Amino acid sequence: MADSEALPSLAGDPVAVEALLQAVFGVVVDEAIQKGTSASQKVCEWKEPEELKQLLDLELRSQGESQEQILERCRAVIRYSVKTGHPRFFNQLFSGLDPHALAGRIITESLNTSQYTYEIAPVFVLMEEEVLRKLRALVGWSSGDGIFCPGGSISNMYAINLARYQRYPDCKQRGLRTLPPLALFTSKECHYSIQKGAAFLGLGTDSVRVVKADERGKMVPEDLERQIGMAEAEGAVPFLVSATSGTTVLGAFDPLEAIADVCQRHGLWLHVDAAWGGSVLLSQTHRHLLDGIQRADSVAWNPHKLLAAGLQCSALLLQDTSNLLKRCHGSQASYLFQQDKFYDVALDTGDKVVQCGRRVDCLKLWLMWKAQGDQGLERRIDQAFALARYLVEEIKKREGLELVMEPEFLNVCFWFVPPSLRGKQERPDYHERLSKVAPVLKERMVKEGSMMIGYQPHGTRGNFFRVVVANPALTCADMDFLLNELERLGQDL
Amino acid sequence: MADSEALPSLAGDPVAVEALLQAVFGVVVDEAIQKGTSASQKVCEWKEPEELKQLLDLELRSQGESQEQILERCRAVIRYSVKTGHPRFFNQLFSGLDPHALAGRIITESLNTSQYTYEIAPVFVLMEEEVLRKLRALVGWSSGDGIFCPGGSISNMYAINLARYQRYPDCKQRGLRTLPPLALFTSKECHYSIQKGAAFLGLGTDSVRVVKADERGKMVPEDLERQIGMAEAEGAVPFLVSATSGTTVLGAFDPLEAIADVCQRHGLWLHVDAAWGGSVLLSQTHRHLLDGIQRADSVAWNPHKLLAAGLQCSALLLQDTSNLLKRCHGSQASYLFQQDKFYDVALDTGDKVVQCGRRVDCLKLWLMWKAQGDQGLERRIDQAFALARYLVEEIKKREGLELVMEPEFLNVCFWFVPPSLRGKQERPDYHERLSKVAPVLKERMVKEGSMMIGYQPHGTRGNFFRVVVANPALTCADMDFLLNELERLGQDL
Repeated sequence: MADSEALPSLAGDPVAVEALLQAVFGVVVDEAIQKGTSASQKVCEWKEPEELKQLLDLELRSQGESQEQILERCRAVIRYSVKTGHPRFFNQLFSGLDPHALAGRIITESLNTSQYTYEIAPVFVLMEEEVLRKLRALVGWSSGDGIFCPGGSISNMYAINLARYQRYPDCKQRGLRTLPPLALFTSKECHYSIQKGAAFLGLGTDSVRVVKADERGKMVPEDLERQIGMAEAEGAVPFLVSATSGTTVLGAFDPLEAIADVCQRHGLWLHVDAAWGGSVLLSQTHRHLLDGIQRADSVAWNPHKLLAAGLQCSALLLQDTSNLLKRCHGSQASYLFQQDKFYDVALDTGDKVVQCGRRVDCLKLWLMWKAQGDQGLERRIDQAFALARYLVEEIKKREGLELVMEPEFLNVCFWFVPPSLRGKQERPDYHERLSKVAPVLKERMVKEGSMMIGYQPHGTRGNFFRVVVANPALTCADMDFLLNELERLGQDL
Repeated sequence: MADSEALPSLAGDPVAVEALLQAVFGVVVDEAIQKGTSASQKVCEWKEPEELKQLLDLELRSQGESQEQILERCRAVIRYSVKTGHPRFFNQLFSGLDPHALAGRIITESLNTSQYTYEIAPVFVLMEEEVLRKLRALVGWSSGDGIFCPGGSISNMYAINLARYQRYPDCKQRGLRTLPPLALFTSKECHYSIQKGAAFLGLGTDSVRVVKADERGKMVPEDLERQIGMAEAEGAVPFLVSATSGTTVLGAFDPLEAIADVCQRHGLWLHVDAAWGGSVLLSQTHRHLLDGIQRADSVAWNPHKLLAAGLQCSALLLQDTSNLLKRCHGSQASYLFQQDKFYDVALDTGDKVVQCGRRVDCLKLWLMWKAQGDQGLERRIDQAFALARYLVEEIKKREGLELVMEPEFLNVCFWFVPPSLRGKQERPDYHERLSKVAPVLKERMVKEGSMMIGYQPHGTRGNFFRVVVANPALTCADMDFLLNELERLGQDL
């Protein structure tokens, strides 16, 4: 027979539970939130993998540990982690630490429910609906559908799956074998998830036709038209175009009106991957970059990027009002989506997704939005654009910094030309040597912990830095710091 | 030019940030953690959707709100949410609130990084590797691969995708059109994600061959053998069998040794969906239920279910050592997975998945495991089995309760036969009337907030209750309560 007492795991001891969580929260506030966002602290405490393994003592053993040991482990985990909320973390398309969003995330974790039925997620079913409605309104739609997905890659896959299902509803049951070869179109600047999605969904990467981009990284609508013709001539059936609003490297916005015209002429589903750029819709000043987005069939938009809602917060928005999402993905599991419930089972939104359990991703965004209002969020976007402009002007003023191009968004791409290469553009090995500079500087900045900036090659261009200006806590002083620091780190090169 | 000050969003004001987060954390501790796990409080505060919308005031407006208003919103969100950590929440395959796991989740949220490169997730890349190694060791593998996925459904999809890629590597590029029709096999008791996965991956639900289960819900290996022969006779190519360790409704364990024999004879990939039952591997007493799992090619195991690690924590484990996961899913994006980094780029595990950004799901499990040790977790599993046994014996003693079957796991399935139907089994409308009892009782318990138990029909059996005994804080008193409460709620039926 079972013991009548709860286990000695704190689970039955509210005082001990509270003491533990208060202590951990104290560590989090001190180490992750205060120090983690302070410019006077390191953005990371770099360790080689083998040393870090030793420091963390990762092995899981038979015996449990004391509370004191556990707290020390919490400190170590934070100490050696990268501080993505730090004002010198420019490495990814997300950064910053919004306190209201974090508050929403802590509440989400404490409630630990799954977003599939109204029964166990009443607040979040209604809240998700409202947040999606708000995002759709910003796209320009007064009705529609949508869902939060575990990341923009899966949002993009959903769009592809929905487009093929709308055209060939049979494929849900019968698969792709009976269909003609399908073709989808995206630019060479698109996110790699389009290729991954095509492979995962059984279409194969060959089904992705790569459309030319201009020198700014924008899809060329004339080439899209040409590629559609070519695919048809080869016997393939075009079904979807994926345009990008805010490409990953250059931050380019595809010309949506012209692309929508092409889609309309050919009867193609228009998906807009606005994972990065979607949040610009909040800015009256800059939302023209997405003109035409209201003509899309689906939009992927990640508020965890520019809005700093926290990983992950990825909305897929649909113009559809025919319940396509549920028809495409649903399977009516009778143990979860019982039809004889005592409330409106249309509120059980879990059958719209290919997941079963699904995290609550709406609260963090909702709470931040309630605290900031549209106006507060708009100021953030405008401020980020202004800071990126400041950075660009500073780059132009300084010797040894060369812009890849004038950015239209928050990706500021440039080369650091070290003293030994300045004025040597004519040397045959100039580009080869310049390409080796960014990896060296990256190693130095990470090992010192002073800042983090991503770099990459791009087409025929060798490695250059991509500074992402997104953290809402940034100031001009942080922009000045990053340029000064690059000069300091690279002065001997 | 940009302002040189940070925005008035608290982001630049560490004192205000700390004050807000301390206040929210106080609300979380009082409302979600203390009251939310106290048997003297309601498990949910039921409201009709329209009323709840009014109470929550969900609309997102132009103006932001004061800190006082935000704190009131936090309280309301928690007040009207279901308390899945409550000792009377028996509704899903997850429940309970482990304080160490919650501590790990709060740290995860405060660090807010993405698990794709060692560069920005050094601690978590190494930690994930160690946790996966531990889980694989429990399966019985001294080497292999794996990854955390956003839920068991996606883990199952990965297994299907890996199996088809291993057999037909060309399909990544060329898609399914050039392949023969494929067939995969699972029992009628399997999770619905197998069907959803087949549709999503372009195979179509017709490719899923449904194998018979016996009266206990276990796959019948002889019928598997027969179905394989039938599929081959129809010209399809069998490639995968998905067995289940712990089915959703009945908690059945498929006979893995016999199924592995069939797979071996036919050269088929054996996937084991142990999302629910995998954690039983921690118990020396009960792990025999999964005998043969070491012969699988892949295993899906969700520690967010029985181990209460928190949503989501879903591991896909592989026996493969040929880097299949990365070959199948990788696309070598040059802006993220640069090959000229200053550390071993094999540590950049993000290209193993079809996502790009990926949440950190290992810390919550690791921290709980460090605190509990194997021994503490084993005691939990054994305690849950003992409590389920206690509940079964109590059900047998009481009038008006009828077991669907003797459970072998923690799903205790039974009918509540109300006073008016006792002894009336011979009435022609008995089963129809009995089937209507569970929905009525469910409505009553939810509206009173006294407990939550799931119900469902199953095959030809009408609606019955499924109590899931998983919360580590449960005691015999909670089992007694639930039976007494059913009797109280149903006495007038």
